[in-house]
Amino acid sequence: MSDLLLTGISELVTPVGSGPKYGAAMSQLRTIRRAAIAIERGRISWVGPESEWSGRSNETIGLGGRAVIPGLVDPHTHAVWAGDRLADFEARNAGATYEQILAAGGGIWHTIRETIDKSSEELVALALPRTQALIRSGATTIEVKSGYGYSPEAELRMLEAVGQLQTQTQARLLPTLLIHLCPEDPVARQAYREAVCCDLIPEVARRGLATAVDIFVEHHAWSAEDAEIILACALSHGLAIKLHTEQFQRVGGLELGIRLGALSIDHLEVCTPQQCKLIGSSKTVATILPGVSLHLGLPAAPGRALIDAGAAVAVGTDLNPGSSPLFSIAAAMSLATRLNGLTAPEALTASTSNAAAALGLTDVGRLEVGLPADLLVIESADWRELPYTLGHTMVSQVWIAGQRQII
Amino acid sequence: MSDLLLTGISELVTPVGSGPKYGAAMSQLRTIRRAAIAIERGRISWVGPESEWSGRSNETIGLGGRAVIPGLVDPHTHAVWAGDRLADFEARNAGATYEQILAAGGGIWHTIRETIDKSSEELVALALPRTQALIRSGATTIEVKSGYGYSPEAELRMLEAVGQLQTQTQARLLPTLLIHLCPEDPVARQAYREAVCCDLIPEVARRGLATAVDIFVEHHAWSAEDAEIILACALSHGLAIKLHTEQFQRVGGLELGIRLGALSIDHLEVCTPQQCKLIGSSKTVATILPGVSLHLGLPAAPGRALIDAGAAVAVGTDLNPGSSPLFSIAAAMSLATRLNGLTAPEALTASTSNAAAALGLTDVGRLEVGLPADLLVIESADWRELPYTLGHTMVSQVWIAGQRQII
Ligand SMILES: [Zn+2]
Ligand SMILES: [Zn+2]
Repeated sequence: MSDLLLTGISELVTPVGSGPKYGAAMSQLRTIRRAAIAIERGRISWVGPESEWSGRSNETIGLGGRAVIPGLVDPHTHAVWAGDRLADFEARNAGATYEQILAAGGGIWHTIRETIDKSSEELVALALPRTQALIRSGATTIEVKSGYGYSPEAELRMLEAVGQLQTQTQARLLPTLLIHLCPEDPVARQAYREAVCCDLIPEVARRGLATAVDIFVEHHAWSAEDAEIILACALSHGLAIKLHTEQFQRVGGLELGIRLGALSIDHLEVCTPQQCKLIGSSKTVATILPGVSLHLGLPAAPGRALIDAGAAVAVGTDLNPGSSPLFSIAAAMSLATRLNGLTAPEALTASTSNAAAALGLTDVGRLEVGLPADLLVIESADWRELPYTLGHTMVSQVWIAGQRQII
Repeated sequence: MSDLLLTGISELVTPVGSGPKYGAAMSQLRTIRRAAIAIERGRISWVGPESEWSGRSNETIGLGGRAVIPGLVDPHTHAVWAGDRLADFEARNAGATYEQILAAGGGIWHTIRETIDKSSEELVALALPRTQALIRSGATTIEVKSGYGYSPEAELRMLEAVGQLQTQTQARLLPTLLIHLCPEDPVARQAYREAVCCDLIPEVARRGLATAVDIFVEHHAWSAEDAEIILACALSHGLAIKLHTEQFQRVGGLELGIRLGALSIDHLEVCTPQQCKLIGSSKTVATILPGVSLHLGLPAAPGRALIDAGAAVAVGTDLNPGSSPLFSIAAAMSLATRLNGLTAPEALTASTSNAAAALGLTDVGRLEVGLPADLLVIESADWRELPYTLGHTMVSQVWIAGQRQII
C-alpha cells in the first residue's frame, strides 16, 4: 500500500544513469508516457505507465496531463552573504572596470566586510529567501559554499549558518568549505594556508560542517601548489574536493583537480580542447555556470566541446552577489542551452544526475524506485517548455521527499 | 478625499519626461525618499514625501518600506500565436540551421499554419496566460501584434483576438497590425500588397482594430519601396507606423521609418554608428529586443551607442515562439543592462516612458499627478534590485489604474 499515487502525468522524463562517468550518455533520457509514480515514506515505490499500476494507494493526486521530471540539483551556490552589490552593478554598467570597483572599496571585499560581522542567525535570515527562490525555480538539492569569511572563525560561522538553514528548509543542502581569496603577501598566505590545514579543515571534518572543500585556483587567487597542499589535507580528513578554476587563466588547477580525483571542476570558461579531453577521460564532473557569462558578459564555458569530449557536464547557478545574481536553477538550465551549446536533454541531465554526481550523490537527480521522491511538475505537457521558456519558470509544483512544497 | 493612500514607500523612482524626444535625459530619474501616493478614481491625485501629505484618504495601505516604480510598458510582443516551436528549439540546439528547420516545415511557417485555423476565441485562450505572465513580470501596458495570419482574414482574426483579450485583462493592450512575411513571387507580392492597402488597412482603421501598422523590412521580407507604399497608406488612414528592421541587413528600413515619422524602429541589431546618429536626431524611438539576442545567440543591438547618439531607447520582450520566448518585461529590462550596455536608470526609462512613447502614449510610464495609477511595488527597498536580479522577478505587487492585480 503506497502513501500516495501521482497520476495524470503526460510524460515522465528522467536520466537513467548516475555517478561521475555518466558523461557520454547525457542525452539518453528515459521517457514514460501517461505515467504514474507511487510514493512510500518519501521514496518512489513504483514508477511506470499508469495503465500498468495495479497496486493500492492511500491517496491519489491527478496532475492534469502535465510533465514530471526529477527535482533539479544546484551544485554550486554562494547563497550565504550579507550586504548588496548594487553600487558595483551601477558602477560597472556606467563603465567602471572591476579594478576600479575594487579600488573604490567595492567588489568581493565589500561582501566579505558585510558578511564577517554578521551572526549565523543573521546570515540564515538573509539566505533563507534565496534558498526559497531556488526551490521555487525547481531546486530540491542545493550546494552552499562558505568563502566570504576569510578567517577560520568567519568561515566556520558561514558553515554553521548553512547547518541552521537546513533546519528551516526541506531542500537538501550540501555545505562546502570554500577556500576563496588568497592573501597577497607570501607570509600571510603561508600563515592562512597553515591555519586552513591545521585548524579549519580538521574542525570542519570533525564537526561534519561540510562534505567537501573547494578552492579558488587562479593567477590572482591560490596557486596550484598551495591548492595541492590544502586539497590533500581535505582528502586526508575524508572530505571530497572541488575547484573553482580555469575561469580567467590556466594555472594548473584543472590538471591538479583531475589528478587528485576532484568531484567537480567548476567554471572552465578558458578550458582548452586538450583540457576538455582530459576532463572527458576522467571521473571528475565539469560544472559550468552560465549566469556568470550573462551577468559579466564574459565568454561562456565550452559545454558542447566538453560533452563531445566525453565529460559529464553539470550546470549550476553560481548564485552570488558579484558575478551571478541568478536565483533560478531552471534559468541556469535554460541559459546552458543558449550560451553553452547544450541540447535540452543534455541540460536536464546536467541539472539533475550530473549535478548530483558533482556533489558525490548517487541517490538524487533521477526518478527510480527506491530513491527519494524529489520531483517537479511542469506547467505543460511537454517538459521541454522548461528549458525553452525564458523569463518565467515553468515549474508548477516542487516535491521533496514526497512532500509538496509551498512555493 | 482620496480613495487610497499608499505609504511606507522607501523610494519612489520615476522618469520625469515623456514623448519621443526624451532620449538624452534617459538617466534623469526623479527619486522621492519615504514617499506616499494618493489615488483617486484610478489616477494619481498626489505624490510626494509622506511627511508632506496633509490630505485625507478613505483607505491607507502601507508598503512596508519597499520601492515603487511606474508600471512597465512592453512595446513589442507577438503574444497571440498557436502551436509551439519546441521541435525547432530541439533541432536548433542539435545544430540545425534556420534554413534546415524551414525546409523541414518548421520555423515561422509552422506558427502560421497553426494560427490561421484557430478561432479568435481559441487564440484568446492561448494568449491570456502569456499576458498574465507579462503582467506578473511588471507589465501594465502591452503592445500585441498580428502577423501570423498572412491573409487579410486571418490578420483581422488576430486583431479581433487582441480586442477580446482586452475584455479579460486590466492591462492596457495596444493592438498593432503587423505586415510580416512577404510573398516571394513578385505577382503574389503585389497582389498581397494591394489587398493590404485596399482592404486590410482601411478595414482595420474603420473598425479601430489597431492603433499602428508595423512592417518587416529586410532582404528576405518587404523592400523599403513596398514598405513605403504600405506605411503611407497606414498614415493616410490615421494609423501610426512602426518597423521591424535592421535586424539582419540594412535595406533602407531605418531611413524610411525616420523619413515617414515612425513611432519606433524595432530590432536595430545591425544599426551603424551613422544610423544611430540619424535616429538620435529624429523623433523616432529606437526599440531594442535583448530576448532575441539571448535566445538566438545573435549580436545585440547597440543600445549604448544609440543613447550616446541621443536616441530615445525603449526595451521590449519581442515575446514570440520562434525568436524570443521571453515572458517577462522585467527580464527584458535586466537583459538590456547586460547585453545592450544600458545603465539601470536608462533601462527603467527604456521600459517605462520611452516604451510608452514607442506606442504613441504620453500618459503612462511615469508617476505623476493626473496619470493612471499604474505602478509596481518592488520586493526590496532599492528599486535597482529589479534590473540587477536574474532568474527571479523582484515585483511583489502590480497595480493598474489604482487596482491591485492578482498575480
Ligand atoms: Zn562560485
Ligand atoms: Zn517582433
